[in-house]
Amino acid sequence: MTTLSPEILAELEKQSIELPSWAFGNSGTRFRVFGTPGTPRDPYEKIADAAQVHAHTALAPIVALHIPWDLVDSYDDLRRHAEDLGVILGTVNSNTFQDEDYKFGALTHEDDRIRQKAIDHHFACIDVMHATGSRDLKIWLAEGSNYPGQNDMRARQDRLQDSLQRIYARLGDAQRLVLEYKFFEPAFYHTDVPDWGTSYAQVAALGERAMVCLDTGHHAPGTNIEFIVMQLLRLGKLGSFDFNSRFYADDDLIVGAADPFQLFRIISEVIRGGGLNNPDVAFMLDQCHNIEAKIPGQIRSVLNVQEMTARALLIDREALAAAQRADDVLAANAVLMDAFYTDVRPALAAWREERGLPADPMAAFLASGYLERISAERVGGAPAGWGA
Amino acid sequence: MTTLSPEILAELEKQSIELPSWAFGNSGTRFRVFGTPGTPRDPYEKIADAAQVHAHTALAPIVALHIPWDLVDSYDDLRRHAEDLGVILGTVNSNTFQDEDYKFGALTHEDDRIRQKAIDHHFACIDVMHATGSRDLKIWLAEGSNYPGQNDMRARQDRLQDSLQRIYARLGDAQRLVLEYKFFEPAFYHTDVPDWGTSYAQVAALGERAMVCLDTGHHAPGTNIEFIVMQLLRLGKLGSFDFNSRFYADDDLIVGAADPFQLFRIISEVIRGGGLNNPDVAFMLDQCHNIEAKIPGQIRSVLNVQEMTARALLIDREALAAAQRADDVLAANAVLMDAFYTDVRPALAAWREERGLPADPMAAFLASGYLERISAERVGGAPAGWGA
Amino acid sequence: MTTLSPEILAELEKQSIELPSWAFGNSGTRFRVFGTPGTPRDPYEKIADAAQVHAHTALAPIVALHIPWDLVDSYDDLRRHAEDLGVILGTVNSNTFQDEDYKFGALTHEDDRIRQKAIDHHFACIDVMHATGSRDLKIWLAEGSNYPGQNDMRARQDRLQDSLQRIYARLGDAQRLVLEYKFFEPAFYHTDVPDWGTSYAQVAALGERAMVCLDTGHHAPGTNIEFIVMQLLRLGKLGSFDFNSRFYADDDLIVGAADPFQLFRIISEVIRGGGLNNPDVAFMLDQCHNIEAKIPGQIRSVLNVQEMTARALLIDREALAAAQRADDVLAANAVLMDAFYTDVRPALAAWREERGLPADPMAAFLASGYLERISAERVGGAPAGWGA
Amino acid sequence: MTTLSPEILAELEKQSIELPSWAFGNSGTRFRVFGTPGTPRDPYEKIADAAQVHAHTALAPIVALHIPWDLVDSYDDLRRHAEDLGVILGTVNSNTFQDEDYKFGALTHEDDRIRQKAIDHHFACIDVMHATGSRDLKIWLAEGSNYPGQNDMRARQDRLQDSLQRIYARLGDAQRLVLEYKFFEPAFYHTDVPDWGTSYAQVAALGERAMVCLDTGHHAPGTNIEFIVMQLLRLGKLGSFDFNSRFYADDDLIVGAADPFQLFRIISEVIRGGGLNNPDVAFMLDQCHNIEAKIPGQIRSVLNVQEMTARALLIDREALAAAQRADDVLAANAVLMDAFYTDVRPALAAWREERGLPADPMAAFLASGYLERISAERVGGAPAGWGA
Repeated sequence: MTTLSPEILAELEKQSIELPSWAFGNSGTRFRVFGTPGTPRDPYEKIADAAQVHAHTALAPIVALHIPWDLVDSYDDLRRHAEDLGVILGTVNSNTFQDEDYKFGALTHEDDRIRQKAIDHHFACIDVMHATGSRDLKIWLAEGSNYPGQNDMRARQDRLQDSLQRIYARLGDAQRLVLEYKFFEPAFYHTDVPDWGTSYAQVAALGERAMVCLDTGHHAPGTNIEFIVMQLLRLGKLGSFDFNSRFYADDDLIVGAADPFQLFRIISEVIRGGGLNNPDVAFMLDQCHNIEAKIPGQIRSVLNVQEMTARALLIDREALAAAQRADDVLAANAVLMDAFYTDVRPALAAWREERGLPADPMAAFLASGYLERISAERVGGAPAGWGA
Repeated sequence: MTTLSPEILAELEKQSIELPSWAFGNSGTRFRVFGTPGTPRDPYEKIADAAQVHAHTALAPIVALHIPWDLVDSYDDLRRHAEDLGVILGTVNSNTFQDEDYKFGALTHEDDRIRQKAIDHHFACIDVMHATGSRDLKIWLAEGSNYPGQNDMRARQDRLQDSLQRIYARLGDAQRLVLEYKFFEPAFYHTDVPDWGTSYAQVAALGERAMVCLDTGHHAPGTNIEFIVMQLLRLGKLGSFDFNSRFYADDDLIVGAADPFQLFRIISEVIRGGGLNNPDVAFMLDQCHNIEAKIPGQIRSVLNVQEMTARALLIDREALAAAQRADDVLAANAVLMDAFYTDVRPALAAWREERGLPADPMAAFLASGYLERISAERVGGAPAGWGA
Repeated sequence: MTTLSPEILAELEKQSIELPSWAFGNSGTRFRVFGTPGTPRDPYEKIADAAQVHAHTALAPIVALHIPWDLVDSYDDLRRHAEDLGVILGTVNSNTFQDEDYKFGALTHEDDRIRQKAIDHHFACIDVMHATGSRDLKIWLAEGSNYPGQNDMRARQDRLQDSLQRIYARLGDAQRLVLEYKFFEPAFYHTDVPDWGTSYAQVAALGERAMVCLDTGHHAPGTNIEFIVMQLLRLGKLGSFDFNSRFYADDDLIVGAADPFQLFRIISEVIRGGGLNNPDVAFMLDQCHNIEAKIPGQIRSVLNVQEMTARALLIDREALAAAQRADDVLAANAVLMDAFYTDVRPALAAWREERGLPADPMAAFLASGYLERISAERVGGAPAGWGA
Repeated sequence: MTTLSPEILAELEKQSIELPSWAFGNSGTRFRVFGTPGTPRDPYEKIADAAQVHAHTALAPIVALHIPWDLVDSYDDLRRHAEDLGVILGTVNSNTFQDEDYKFGALTHEDDRIRQKAIDHHFACIDVMHATGSRDLKIWLAEGSNYPGQNDMRARQDRLQDSLQRIYARLGDAQRLVLEYKFFEPAFYHTDVPDWGTSYAQVAALGERAMVCLDTGHHAPGTNIEFIVMQLLRLGKLGSFDFNSRFYADDDLIVGAADPFQLFRIISEVIRGGGLNNPDVAFMLDQCHNIEAKIPGQIRSVLNVQEMTARALLIDREALAAAQRADDVLAANAVLMDAFYTDVRPALAAWREERGLPADPMAAFLASGYLERISAERVGGAPAGWGA
């Protein structure tokens, strides 16, 4: 059995992954949202489910919220609920894509009334952040156009900067604005923040506490994502990850499921650039469990991140540097592949047991009866989904 | 003004494009379905809207139905309703992607009960076809898997063939089965009919009245679609088109909107292969008007097809063949581009007027007051969408 | 016949496109470089061919050089040769991809000797620029790695910045450094400047006279290039275009050949952002005429740019803005499409004749006998290609 | 240490991978072919190098030839040379892309003289096959066009079928024709055999001994290659693999280097469909070692295939089937991933030692002094490359 050094275990000990509350609600495609028994019906139940992930893995102590999907009367109360279950509330995600007013834009809209409404929504999100103790306001702009000519891309870009400046100015001193980019969808011709370059240019113009969010599913086919990780770390602007995986578009599959080697390369570059267990770089999941069980899907996901982090930490950096210096292509690649192909799972299972955690969190959760309990108890009411 | 020869006008006179009933209902992305005033609430109102497209263009005399979205008590009655409005009922589209039973497959499902249910649904569709006088049963299989290992692709392929054989056997002598392929979505790892080769292999094993449907938005990035058109015509298996356009994935934008030159090349190859105004090759639209007005969106679409057909008919085939024979790359390409860049719109407007149609169908429809009328009248009830 | 307004003709009058000297030499794929009779054998003959393009179109008064492919003993002499033929020498392109020393990098190489050699090559290019009167030093970095782990992407990025700073410092006050990005090829895992964001971050750190070069063939599939045009103009960093077109990768086909509508959208955005006939934004071609005739291929290319510029200038900006303000998607798109579909070729032909140019430059060139003459005269010697 | 069952070892014992002679010559991109000391200068030296791969791995007993690159005076002599070194001669690859006559096509050319020349070339290849004892004639058609309109795709398709029929008729009874498809390159608009469907339709019309060759690098971005493997095995038409890997286009990198999990899925599907160690399905490499050492590059490649085969053989097929039947997405995927993440390398090293092979073939080869010897000895003469 491969053993993990104390230095590696110390890094793994510190690892913390943020779960999206919406991963526990129903999701689907434009064609159909299939249901699952036991789906939570409110933010309290979502957080209860998220806490299960953390209880079985010790990897996921933070739950990100989405406003308005996670609107509650008292965020103090929600925060206490979370803390009682052993987790805390994290990033607040705004939503400017589900109101009829936003059909043609929100923070980029030419109509001042609509744009102000979208800005005000972010002010409200900041208020929530003060109540929840959240640090990050994450903005995904689902804005753009479907047809050439439909809108003036340049003017939208300028209005976006103005909107972001006003939101940024409202942040508390310990708070950050994180701007997510996305190649396409829901807009099909242009997206207002389609690539890391645009997100970078926009946040660089705001100030030090404005950062880029890299969602691993939001790139053109073939994009070398670890290069972008490297570049954003180099530029001091990598604020957070939205982890997931994909074969085609923004499939939002379980992180590491579609291309495990890509995840390995991404985390290797995070380590290379000083981003691992660096509080400036939040590790979050952003996934859809359309057909698979949701809580186990999240457990699988955080384990995937942990396992791949362990593999990436195994890279023999000295041997790698020596082979690189010698321009020995095969030797350098072999150093990387050796770490990737090492089976760290037994060592991680043993380490988990030492810490009082289940060796096999997936099996332990399934054996716990939790799924059966929520399926029985959560009857009536509307299952949470992206609309609520 | 470019003039169109009598031969070209004779071809255009024959052109007939089938409209999808669902284009008149609401559609959207997985994030949001925005509403539109005046959206039809039942199949009767959808057909009334479709008839407007035909009334203004004389291009769209057929309306395709989707079951169960277009379920009615009496298809005789619906047919008469259509005929009263000057259109007829066309292709019947089945649906095996919106029932909880079909979460993991339908015609490919391992569970015989579910598979039989999906087959029975197609039998019911054939019954509808007898009532409506429809020729084509179109099957889009929204089946596949999201994760490697989730299912046995090979066994599914074999079960699919078995299911199709049983459906094919139920067809009337004048009816056809048309199998649509799609690269991905809603499944994100594998799709059971992902490419033209699979559709071709499946329908070739059925018989002469089984054909392939080519949806222009259902290919991998960079695919040369006109090559596939050529090949399917050569193999005698191009049954129908689902026209739309895209910049990224299956965006379902207005045909010709994203890449007009691609549409030109596709229609040129249709003409080259004898597919134009050939009853064996149905021209259908399959689009989503998420943010633009629906009826005008359909009018724009059929005009785009007509204009591009006129351009493709302008290609000087003799000059083209001569340049090709001489391996004169620039001359051959110039023959094609000359036709593409010719502005046929004034000649088509004049021709429309001669036939008693509005020179500018878009303007005429907007001036007709129809949109205002349906917005006022269609109050109450549930707007039609993909779920109904 | 569509007429072009005096304002539009005034813009067209000013248009100037830079030709790449290497377009007149042989090019091909990794599998084969096919030959063409009459291919120039030295820079003097390349410039003579380029001058033919200008003589027939009045669009291409500048010829870009590539060092070392265009090494000559006296650049004064070459410049006079060009001026005698009615053209001037333009951008100087450096080359750090064809020396055995550069197998694993040049401006990014860890070995100081190799990196200094690459920097010195750029110093030599600057010397050439002083002799030729060129303003722009264009750097395309064909550097990267083929296998994960092969090299340290971050360290290479830092060394690149250092190398560029030293080159930038050597520039004359009226000279600029233009950094081209490319998605992939010749490196197949990572490229050191793979996207506009990286090029922007690198040149922004240099200073005001460092700019980005956008090659229209150097993007991931599906990339909205006109968005990048808009963004770079907004950021004041669009230094030049390398025009060409593609269906798949970096195909280097004739500009406008693969997707005419994309070229239209790009030029529309150039106009929107003030980049047309703006001396800060150089219009260059960078193409390969692997199988088609080279001089006619270049004539076709500059005509394509001119025709598409005329179409883009026809856009009714007021009507467009009004439709955009009204969120009338179809009307706004229609304004754009109306300009695109307008046939400007007869008006341009008439205008050319007024200016003493041939109405049909392609036909006029073919009739001139020039191709026959060079085919007969240029016998013996080595045809120019990418290696010389 | 994971142990491999006798059944698995028995399969591995049978595994046989065919090496391409051209992998030992120089290759590169259109921009540059970098050299390597010790590069073979003729087919005899290429085979000597290939024999080294087999001597260190017992995996690669066959060497594929490419005509005319591997033209020799006596194939009897070459065969004896190979057999003396412990390998045999395998697939013969034709070449219709490097003669000036083939600039615009070969087996598809409209000019009967050129088409006959290309057919005759294949007759000559069949003569070589009789001399070498080769079974397979592999045809990769580097034919197509660069510009829309350049050629008549339909007529070319028909002429291709005619040419293939004439070649097929010339085959001996124990010989096969294998038709390779490729998405694009060297043609940039259309390729005459661009996808598996076209290759399938072409070979199905020939007869039982005509098969499809699947090159893993020849697909559109995002294509699910293992699906095609499944389908071709199902249709009885998978004749051979050309293994390599890619991040972007046809990068021809070491198999398994770019996406190890994809290679695992492909081999899993080969096993599922009965294609492993099935003489009907040849495993070949087709790679370019542009910058890495060639013989070690080939050793690394065959080891990658072997290791991934061992992992795929470890899949618990019963557990997989049970999870699939239960529609337990996560459990089914976990069965697959468990095999993928198992480190089979120690068990394979031990097994190699038992068989008298080096535990670490890469290290053993590097220690053998062979590279130093050929670098010293192979001085003078022209290094082999794609042109010779």
